[in-house]
Amino acid sequence: LQDIVARALDGESRAIAKLISMVEHADPRLPKMAEMLNRHVGRAHVVGLTGPPGVGKSTTTSMLISALRGAGRRVAVLAVDPSSPYTGGALLGDRVRMIDHGNDSDVFIRSMASRGQLGGLAWAAPQAIRILDAAGFDVVLVETVGVGQSEIDVVTLSDTTVVVMAPGMGDGIQAAKAGVLEVADVFVVNKADREGVGLLQRDLQNMLATSGRSPGHACWSPPIVTTVASRRQGAPELVAALSEHLAWLRAGDEILQRRAHRAASEVEGIAMRALQNRLNDIRNAGRVDSLARQVVDGSLDPFSAASALLDDIRG
Amino acid sequence: LQDIVARALDGESRAIAKLISMVEHADPRLPKMAEMLNRHVGRAHVVGLTGPPGVGKSTTTSMLISALRGAGRRVAVLAVDPSSPYTGGALLGDRVRMIDHGNDSDVFIRSMASRGQLGGLAWAAPQAIRILDAAGFDVVLVETVGVGQSEIDVVTLSDTTVVVMAPGMGDGIQAAKAGVLEVADVFVVNKADREGVGLLQRDLQNMLATSGRSPGHACWSPPIVTTVASRRQGAPELVAALSEHLAWLRAGDEILQRRAHRAASEVEGIAMRALQNRLNDIRNAGRVDSLARQVVDGSLDPFSAASALLDDIRG
Repeated sequence: LQDIVARALDGESRAIAKLISMVEHADPRLPKMAEMLNRHVGRAHVVGLTGPPGVGKSTTTSMLISALRGAGRRVAVLAVDPSSPYTGGALLGDRVRMIDHGNDSDVFIRSMASRGQLGGLAWAAPQAIRILDAAGFDVVLVETVGVGQSEIDVVTLSDTTVVVMAPGMGDGIQAAKAGVLEVADVFVVNKADREGVGLLQRDLQNMLATSGRSPGHACWSPPIVTTVASRRQGAPELVAALSEHLAWLRAGDEILQRRAHRAASEVEGIAMRALQNRLNDIRNAGRVDSLARQVVDGSLDPFSAASALLDDIRG
Repeated sequence: LQDIVARALDGESRAIAKLISMVEHADPRLPKMAEMLNRHVGRAHVVGLTGPPGVGKSTTTSMLISALRGAGRRVAVLAVDPSSPYTGGALLGDRVRMIDHGNDSDVFIRSMASRGQLGGLAWAAPQAIRILDAAGFDVVLVETVGVGQSEIDVVTLSDTTVVVMAPGMGDGIQAAKAGVLEVADVFVVNKADREGVGLLQRDLQNMLATSGRSPGHACWSPPIVTTVASRRQGAPELVAALSEHLAWLRAGDEILQRRAHRAASEVEGIAMRALQNRLNDIRNAGRVDSLARQVVDGSLDPFSAASALLDDIRG
C-alpha cells in the first residue's frame, strides 16, 4: 500500500486508478490509506458539473479539460453515476475524451458507479476526490449523471457547482431549472448556436432575479456562461468564471465552510456505514432473527429487542 | 400512560388515537407502552391494500369494512402516506368512510403521515399496527398511497397484501403491475363494470403464469377478485379470499416467517433510529463540526474522525 500511495502522490495514473478501485471495493486498508494521503489533501479546486441528460455535459467537460490544460493545470475527471453499476453514457464519454486527452499524463479520467454499494456515492466519491487531490491535480471535475438526487449530492462534494443546460430541452430543463437553481454557482448555457438560447438565458435571469440571487446579491451572483462546447466556444469565459468563484470562495471563509460541510457529511457517512456493517454482521450471525422470533412469540417487545440489538452493535 | 393503555386495550377509540399520536410524535414513553401492549399483540389479521391512484382503494377499503362488520369482525384502518405530511386523498377518504361507519364503535379509522419523520413509516407504522392489534381489532387494514417504494413497504407490514387495480388506467397500471406482481397475495380488479376489465384480467393471468405464480403453484396462487366497490359488488368474494389466505398462512409456518421478517425490520428500524438520534444529538452539540474542521485543516483524516465519532455514538 505504501508503495502504491507513494506512486499515486507522484501522479502515476495506474497507482491512482488502483487506489480508486480500493475505494470502490471498500478495501479494509482505506483508513490507513486516508491517513497516508491526509497531509497532501486540500489544494485542488473541486468543480462539480451537473445538468439534465442531453445538454452536453461530457462535451463541456472535455472542453474544460483542454482549456485548463492550455493554462498549464493538471486535471482529473471523476464521472459518477449513483443510479447504475455501469453507465453507458459516462463510459462512452470516457472513451471519447480519452481520444482527445489520452496521451496527456496530466489528465486523469475515471468513471465511478455505486449502485448497491452501502452508502453509495455519498460514501465513495469523497474518498476518490481525496486521492485525486493528493495526487496533485489542480482541478478535480466531478461530472454527475443529472438525475434527481445526484444533482443535489454533487453540491456536497464540490467547491464550485456548475449546472449545464441547453436550449430546447422542453419540460426536462424546466424541471431541472427548478431543482438546481439553489445549488448552481455557475450556469452554462451550452449549444448556444441553437434556437431558443435567448429564451433560456432570459428564463434563467428571471429565475435568478426572483430567487434573490440576481446581480447585486450580497454574496455571489451565479454568472451565465454561453458555450458551444462541441466547437470549444466559450471555454475561456467558463474557466474565468470558475477562477472567479474560487477567488470569491477564498476571499472569505466560504471555502472553509463548504469543505467543513463536506467533511462533516463524509465523516458521518463513514461512521454510519460502519454501524450498518456491524448490524449486517450481527444479522448474518442470526442474532436479529433470534430477537425477531422472541418478538413474534411475545416474550420480548420490539423496543426491548432493539435495546438488546443496540448493545450488540455498540460492541 | 397506564390508564390510556388500559382504555385502549378495552377498545376505547379516543385512547387508541392518543397512543397512535404518541407514535407519530416519537414520545419517549413508547418503549414502556410497547412493553405494556406486548402480551396483547399477535391476534389481528394485518391486511395491506395498495395500488395506483384512482383505482378505488378507499372505496374498496370502505366496502371491506362493511363486509367484515357484517361478519361480526372489529375492523381498524390505518391509511398511510409515506410521501407527505398530509394527504388530501387519504383525509378525504377518511371523511367519506366516517360517514359510512362513523357511528360504529367497532370500526376505527386513522390516517398517518410520516414525511420528515426519522425512519418514516417503516418506523412508525408497525407501532401503530401493534396498538390496533392489542386493542382487539380482528382485522387491521393498512391502506397505502401507491407510489413507488410504499407498494413494496406495505408487504413488510402485512400478513396479506391486496393489490387493487382497475381497467383503463393506461401506462400507470402497466408500471404498477410490474412492480407489485411479486408482492400481491390477492389481486382486486375494481371498477369491473368498466370497459377493459376482461383485458386486465387476462393481462394479470398471463403475468402470473409467466412469473411462475400461476394456479398450480406449490404454495399460494394469488386469486383475482373482481369488484365494483362503489356498489359493494364482490365483497363476499374478497372477504373469502382474505380468509383463505389467512388459513393458508396459518396452515404452515408462513405466518410466523412473515411476522418474524416484519419484527426483524421493526427491531432494526428502532435500533438504527436510536443510533441516528444519538448522532443528531452529537451533531447538535457541535462535535461533528469540530471533527470536520480538523479534517479540513489536515490534522485528522476522515476515517480517524469517523472512528472518534463512533466512540461518541457508542457512548
